[in-house]
Amino acid sequence: MSLTPKNEKYTFKEIMERKKRGEVLTLGEFDWIIANYLEDVIKDYQMSAFIAAIFFKGMTDKEVGDLTSSYLNSGITYNLDDVPGWKADKHSTGGVGDKITLIFTPLAASYGIKVAKLSGRALGQTGGTLDKLDSFPGFRSDLSETQFKNLLKENGMVIAAANHDLAPADAEIYALRDATQLIDSLPLIAASIMAKKLAIKTNSLILDVKVGSGAFMKDKESATALAKLMINIGKHHHRDVEVLLTDMEKPLGRTIGNALEVKEAWETLHGNGEADVIEIATTAVALTLVKAKVFANFETAKKSALSRLQSGQVVPFFKTLITAQGGDISILENYNEHFPTKNKVQIKADQDGYISYHDALNLGFLNIDLGGGRLHKTDVIDYAAGIIICQPDGSLVKTGDVVMELLTNKEPLASWTQRAQKSFTIDKAYRPKPVIEKIIN
Amino acid sequence: MSLTPKNEKYTFKEIMERKKRGEVLTLGEFDWIIANYLEDVIKDYQMSAFIAAIFFKGMTDKEVGDLTSSYLNSGITYNLDDVPGWKADKHSTGGVGDKITLIFTPLAASYGIKVAKLSGRALGQTGGTLDKLDSFPGFRSDLSETQFKNLLKENGMVIAAANHDLAPADAEIYALRDATQLIDSLPLIAASIMAKKLAIKTNSLILDVKVGSGAFMKDKESATALAKLMINIGKHHHRDVEVLLTDMEKPLGRTIGNALEVKEAWETLHGNGEADVIEIATTAVALTLVKAKVFANFETAKKSALSRLQSGQVVPFFKTLITAQGGDISILENYNEHFPTKNKVQIKADQDGYISYHDALNLGFLNIDLGGGRLHKTDVIDYAAGIIICQPDGSLVKTGDVVMELLTNKEPLASWTQRAQKSFTIDKAYRPKPVIEKIIN
Repeated sequence: MSLTPKNEKYTFKEIMERKKRGEVLTLGEFDWIIANYLEDVIKDYQMSAFIAAIFFKGMTDKEVGDLTSSYLNSGITYNLDDVPGWKADKHSTGGVGDKITLIFTPLAASYGIKVAKLSGRALGQTGGTLDKLDSFPGFRSDLSETQFKNLLKENGMVIAAANHDLAPADAEIYALRDATQLIDSLPLIAASIMAKKLAIKTNSLILDVKVGSGAFMKDKESATALAKLMINIGKHHHRDVEVLLTDMEKPLGRTIGNALEVKEAWETLHGNGEADVIEIATTAVALTLVKAKVFANFETAKKSALSRLQSGQVVPFFKTLITAQGGDISILENYNEHFPTKNKVQIKADQDGYISYHDALNLGFLNIDLGGGRLHKTDVIDYAAGIIICQPDGSLVKTGDVVMELLTNKEPLASWTQRAQKSFTIDKAYRPKPVIEKIIN
Repeated sequence: MSLTPKNEKYTFKEIMERKKRGEVLTLGEFDWIIANYLEDVIKDYQMSAFIAAIFFKGMTDKEVGDLTSSYLNSGITYNLDDVPGWKADKHSTGGVGDKITLIFTPLAASYGIKVAKLSGRALGQTGGTLDKLDSFPGFRSDLSETQFKNLLKENGMVIAAANHDLAPADAEIYALRDATQLIDSLPLIAASIMAKKLAIKTNSLILDVKVGSGAFMKDKESATALAKLMINIGKHHHRDVEVLLTDMEKPLGRTIGNALEVKEAWETLHGNGEADVIEIATTAVALTLVKAKVFANFETAKKSALSRLQSGQVVPFFKTLITAQGGDISILENYNEHFPTKNKVQIKADQDGYISYHDALNLGFLNIDLGGGRLHKTDVIDYAAGIIICQPDGSLVKTGDVVMELLTNKEPLASWTQRAQKSFTIDKAYRPKPVIEKIIN
């Protein structure tokens, strides 16, 4: 931590006054306010007023970069210089059914890329990779810096929980923003995401920015603005950041729920994956492979990644990832025994036609009610609960076909069926939509 | 207190979200958020975010009125129906050398008007009537509702400190705004002032809104806007409010400091007052007399007030005011014995010409350094300290004439002289400026 809370060059009063007037704050001012906040010299009620001032007055690109620096300066960073090879990270802004990390990590590692990744937990409609991994009994994501680096050196990949030593200011301020309804500010979102990402010094970072009903960003404009902000923060810190803008109107893949998604990832690694999941995972890997100069161009890299994923040869890497962090991979061999659910609600087609999904948010919240997610931080997750989408987007269905299955250990409610039915339509025609809307860099 | 914190119709999240989007909040929402804040269900950090949202998004006139209602609803109000006669109040937004209340109160009372007044303490450059009154040993301003009403019935006047039972939400929120640098919002200032004023149900209220360097409002536009907001709040609560917009570029009268100003008020009541003090005091009284139908028109009322003030016949009313609240009026008979100061710094004219003052703010802060004011709430005041303006605004002075005397029990600093000199200019000509800029109603 390089912050100097005792510096008397600044006062809260003056910094707040400058921000109120829309003046551009300096790195010194952000460092001072963050350091004093962590020391409890600046109180929660003062920080929330300051955050509100940022919320309403906005920040310049330079300020967003500097605030991110202050978040970083509030903690330690993992310097990976002693880990040989190309260190890569990939991060999603959060969606429904998003199991890309579970495929990206072993697939990239299979090329010798060192995948150094911090992941998060489920909250609201969005799932969290750590909860998915916790479906494996014994899996440990709470790692020290040494454990993190050793796993990275030994296996070429590691997925850990954000450590409180990394950008602690971000965690504190995020909690404050959450309690004060000040989350939805693009500069604050960008700084928060990037502080955690930049704290691990990888050579490349692919950001998967989700856009649509199930994502935090509901429209393409704000998602693009967020993407650009994060790329700028990367530049400010001399870090290479590339963004995939991907669709989150519909859920990703064919399952929502923790163990269900792990199983889907496992099947995808065996050559049996959904097109959307495969598309995002292989694109993110291909972009990384080009950055790392494993391939000279994207098309070749993508083709290779696709063929390798389909071949099943990435499966051992996945096994290594789970096993090295203490997880019991054998549960996948007799899945139903390990993840029983008392009740299954079948959702059936009420007409013939092509099915298309459009309400990932609704399904994300339905998954929470089934037991598979978290509305509040303290909610306990039922790893077995979730939703199986039996008829993927674009399927031609007949009246009476089972479209979805809701798996739960709770007593089913009649409203669940209605809510599930609201998430899709069955029409005479199907208009496919690319899952990757654009690549921004 | 008519607030219902347990009402589950609202949530902080939804109210904050609505305010963020600039939607118009309802009285129910303000009541709910204020009640829950006072119950500590809504935390300081949430309230400061909400106050910041108001600060940056503003409020409609209706919202300002409703927020004021919520402040009022958070405590008790003094219903003065059982006090016969016309109940009047007069309030200043705060200035330097402002001793108008000390003259208004006995002058209005001499006509049978019942002056029911809450006053405040000095903070920053602005003086406070309660501190001035505390120059009288034994003076008590901390009164119960019964004491307040009894004094009003018996003597026709009372000046008390704001009781915590009156609009307690305002006091709490003001402290939070002070700590978070969110004071300077016109709607919040207007609601805060008016909540305390409306809590005492008088028939008329004259607001003296100060404008200029020594006042909170630095320019006529914002002072006028504040005046209109307060008049609107009055209308919202069916209360008659009239505003005097008065100059605060220069200090009022010929003294700054607590006992000094009491002495000046005493002298003014003996027919020896400065023109600006007399003008504001008699105008405020005349407006009140017209409201109370003691006189049919303003000119007659003003003429009567002026002649009565100059005649000395108001002196016994002042004595009653001070004595009834326990103050020892005899100190004015041997002032120097009661208010000795170790040091006196004389500020002299360095050229011949007409003197004019223009930096009341500077003199207000100089008075604090002399010991006569309060920078922080906990500072202890030296009642004897202060500034005597020997040559009032517009005087023709000669080089070497004593312009001001700084009275203090501290060791004088060389910088004091420079600061005092900065507060006036001596020019070939003098352009008089009316002290009352306009009357708004």
